[in-house]
Amino acid sequence: MNVLIIGGGGFIGSRLATEWLRQHPESKGKITLVDQAFLDIIKNNPGFECIAGDFSDPSLIDPLLEKKPELIFHLAAVVSGEAEKNFDLGMRVNLYGSQHLLEKCRQLAYCPKVVFASSCGIFGGDVNQVLTEETAPKPKSSYGTQKAMVDLLMNDFSRRGFVDARCLRLPTITVRPGKPNAATSSFLSSIIREPLNGKATSYPVAPSSPFWILSPKQVVRNFIHAAKLSAKDIGDDRTINLPGITVSVQEMIDSLEKVTHKGITDHISYEPDAFLQSIVLTWPPNFDTKKADALGFTADKNTTEIITNYIQEEHIQVPEK
Amino acid sequence: MNVLIIGGGGFIGSRLATEWLRQHPESKGKITLVDQAFLDIIKNNPGFECIAGDFSDPSLIDPLLEKKPELIFHLAAVVSGEAEKNFDLGMRVNLYGSQHLLEKCRQLAYCPKVVFASSCGIFGGDVNQVLTEETAPKPKSSYGTQKAMVDLLMNDFSRRGFVDARCLRLPTITVRPGKPNAATSSFLSSIIREPLNGKATSYPVAPSSPFWILSPKQVVRNFIHAAKLSAKDIGDDRTINLPGITVSVQEMIDSLEKVTHKGITDHISYEPDAFLQSIVLTWPPNFDTKKADALGFTADKNTTEIITNYIQEEHIQVPEK
Repeated sequence: MNVLIIGGGGFIGSRLATEWLRQHPESKGKITLVDQAFLDIIKNNPGFECIAGDFSDPSLIDPLLEKKPELIFHLAAVVSGEAEKNFDLGMRVNLYGSQHLLEKCRQLAYCPKVVFASSCGIFGGDVNQVLTEETAPKPKSSYGTQKAMVDLLMNDFSRRGFVDARCLRLPTITVRPGKPNAATSSFLSSIIREPLNGKATSYPVAPSSPFWILSPKQVVRNFIHAAKLSAKDIGDDRTINLPGITVSVQEMIDSLEKVTHKGITDHISYEPDAFLQSIVLTWPPNFDTKKADALGFTADKNTTEIITNYIQEEHIQVPEK
Repeated sequence: MNVLIIGGGGFIGSRLATEWLRQHPESKGKITLVDQAFLDIIKNNPGFECIAGDFSDPSLIDPLLEKKPELIFHLAAVVSGEAEKNFDLGMRVNLYGSQHLLEKCRQLAYCPKVVFASSCGIFGGDVNQVLTEETAPKPKSSYGTQKAMVDLLMNDFSRRGFVDARCLRLPTITVRPGKPNAATSSFLSSIIREPLNGKATSYPVAPSSPFWILSPKQVVRNFIHAAKLSAKDIGDDRTINLPGITVSVQEMIDSLEKVTHKGITDHISYEPDAFLQSIVLTWPPNFDTKKADALGFTADKNTTEIITNYIQEEHIQVPEK
């Protein structure tokens, strides 16, 4: 089976590619990754063909669809903070790029399976409500708007049999390794990662602010799980709010101390940021994920598990007391 | 004030233009209408400038925006049945045309007010639920999908201050004069209009099927009302489910008899149509319109009033017994 992973060079995309290949060794050489850039470890893996460029450029994506991928993971996006600050870029990649991808898929002689990385950032407004797939998206960001629009289009293209889509609305993914990025939720990784790097860091919201989070490990598992489900299992509505856990910034900091030691969080400070607050505090943190649960999607047990896994997977040397 | 009415040659658009001019005689010569075609009575009205063509063609719409309309009514659409049968046409006009319009509005040096004709056809699924603006759109048609996507974009463009939009989600508008059209709800006008023309007609769903309807008179009133509301009154969410009344096909037929005489409905028959049923029976007919009510939008009292108004406004000679 030919697999195309758009955004396959990114943090989640490259893990997904690696895990897919591990589980499907017969896919070796049949996995195409598209992204702006790739880590050497991905580029040098003979299991992958890596195409560098902008997926929203038809001259790049069109020939890749002519290779007839039966399964397409679409994870490419301009992240929330960047899409808010650079409106044209966000529209071009997140909306128009996805629309073009779907139009091209429709022209294929078969119906490809598409697993789309949507976002819980499509929701916004009353943070006290408990969200399900029946809750209206009221995004308070252009990123959320663009994702919500593509969700609708994925549903219609599936209804018409042009593609067989499943749209996973991702919680905030933490802990991300590497450097802070332009996602407005970037601090939810930094508050764990930077102290473990022995560096100072900050968070822009009150420590009691709750968030809906999921680990990289679980999100990769859920992407692969989504690809294996049948259309019939999912039903007409292809949107799925992924399971997660609701935790406050303070709980994450406390868990980091619990997993390591008390002094480690000494250089985490609260630095209010009105721009970040105006977006991340509109994300409702409480979900009823019975649809996802019934379909076999999974979340982490707690933040302790998330942090312990991060330390193990990334081979982190915890700074001494 | 310069006013642009996109879809201003259509059934609702031309009534809206005429009523707007009646209420605002100072607008004479400052009202531009765009549509594929116009009735002579509109074309010959010196109050209007009529531009014939496809609004989704940039070479037509772009120069019209350079005329700096402060108020834009956007009613142009490929109707539901046509958008379902001709997917490319529906996408081009309903989605891409609206996206282009918004992009061009954004480039204006001021923030135009946009009143958008959205549709209750964005909803679909559980017909027993009572719908509000908090209900997730789950359209079962491409038309509904395209309208729901534009609603989201109108909200984001308003949030960013590019336009000052208000999206009115229209019930099925009945009674429409003239001929049956390609809207999947066309029969809801035909069952009143055709018997009054002395002609036979049919409906494609069980007579007990309930629908959410509004008269042409009320929808024009509501469009004008929407243009007068302030952004502050409406709030962040610019979508408004218009008030309407819930009636069954049988109740409409009974009302026609009540307003005229019993024999008039003798040539109305039930002719099941799977295609039409697959769309119109997914439209939930029960709404809680407290948001619209509080903002001063209005509905008809009952079907008797709707039919009586239609007979008067259209100068119908009721066929004799």
